[in-house]
Amino acid sequence: MIILGLDPGLGTTGWGLIRSEGSRLQHLGNGRFKTVASEPLAQRLSYLDSQLAALLADHPPDTAAMEEVFVNENPQSTLKLAHARGVLLAGLARHGLQVGEYASRLVKKALVGTGAAEKVQVQAMVSRLLPGVKIDGPDAADALAVAVCHAHHAASASNLRSR
Amino acid sequence: MIILGLDPGLGTTGWGLIRSEGSRLQHLGNGRFKTVASEPLAQRLSYLDSQLAALLADHPPDTAAMEEVFVNENPQSTLKLAHARGVLLAGLARHGLQVGEYASRLVKKALVGTGAAEKVQVQAMVSRLLPGVKIDGPDAADALAVAVCHAHHAASASNLRSR
Repeated sequence: MIILGLDPGLGTTGWGLIRSEGSRLQHLGNGRFKTVASEPLAQRLSYLDSQLAALLADHPPDTAAMEEVFVNENPQSTLKLAHARGVLLAGLARHGLQVGEYASRLVKKALVGTGAAEKVQVQAMVSRLLPGVKIDGPDAADALAVAVCHAHHAASASNLRSR
Repeated sequence: MIILGLDPGLGTTGWGLIRSEGSRLQHLGNGRFKTVASEPLAQRLSYLDSQLAALLADHPPDTAAMEEVFVNENPQSTLKLAHARGVLLAGLARHGLQVGEYASRLVKKALVGTGAAEKVQVQAMVSRLLPGVKIDGPDAADALAVAVCHAHHAASASNLRSR
């Protein structure tokens, strides 16, 4: 099963692609979609949409995963994030993909064993679980992390089913 | 000039289409995009996207307008709104449309003369400015209102240019 993880952002969206077979994980690719801050919001969102479409055409996954979002101490930036996240979710569904949504704490717990893990611990664990991976920055690391979390949950669900 | 106004919402998005020639306004159509609350978020957003695409194919506008969004007393519902708004903005840009964004107060001021106008005053003024209009609910009324606001601003801009 090929899993696409996305870490949405209006300026930079991280993506990470892994293959999951039983408990084995393999890194397939990771990177960033970028938009230009000086362009109108609608254009930036549309550009995000086309970058996702191009990735899905080149490397079609079987399923996708994203972190949930909540309003934090900076409402304006959360709103921008939600605009971008909406575009990415719609783009995934348009390509027939189901999207697993996970709370940030759950992603940390799946990778490090505790929901209170630091970002750097999560990244270290991503590198350890996907040997040889070269990660294109923190957004791509977060995208790979949510993909790994999705893989764990999918494996547990299929273990339960096969009992 | 044909203007599409949108009032974004995840469950219900209102739309309103008007023609603006100088100071003359004509109602062309209004209605609602609806999504099913029991469906996954990604599917609902994708469905919103296809309903907009169908409208743009049937009734291509020259330009579009939307209210700005801010985080209010209900952050969860604002986040849903922002997801929907992102999808609609990207859809408009994908069809080559520029989108005018207006603060809610500015829309009220353009229609009623004061930024503190009540919703019902705005709707009454929409009906008065677009004689014979049959409005498909409050979301469509808000969509027509932002379209009218965009028409006024476009007319002022063109008056300034022709001086």
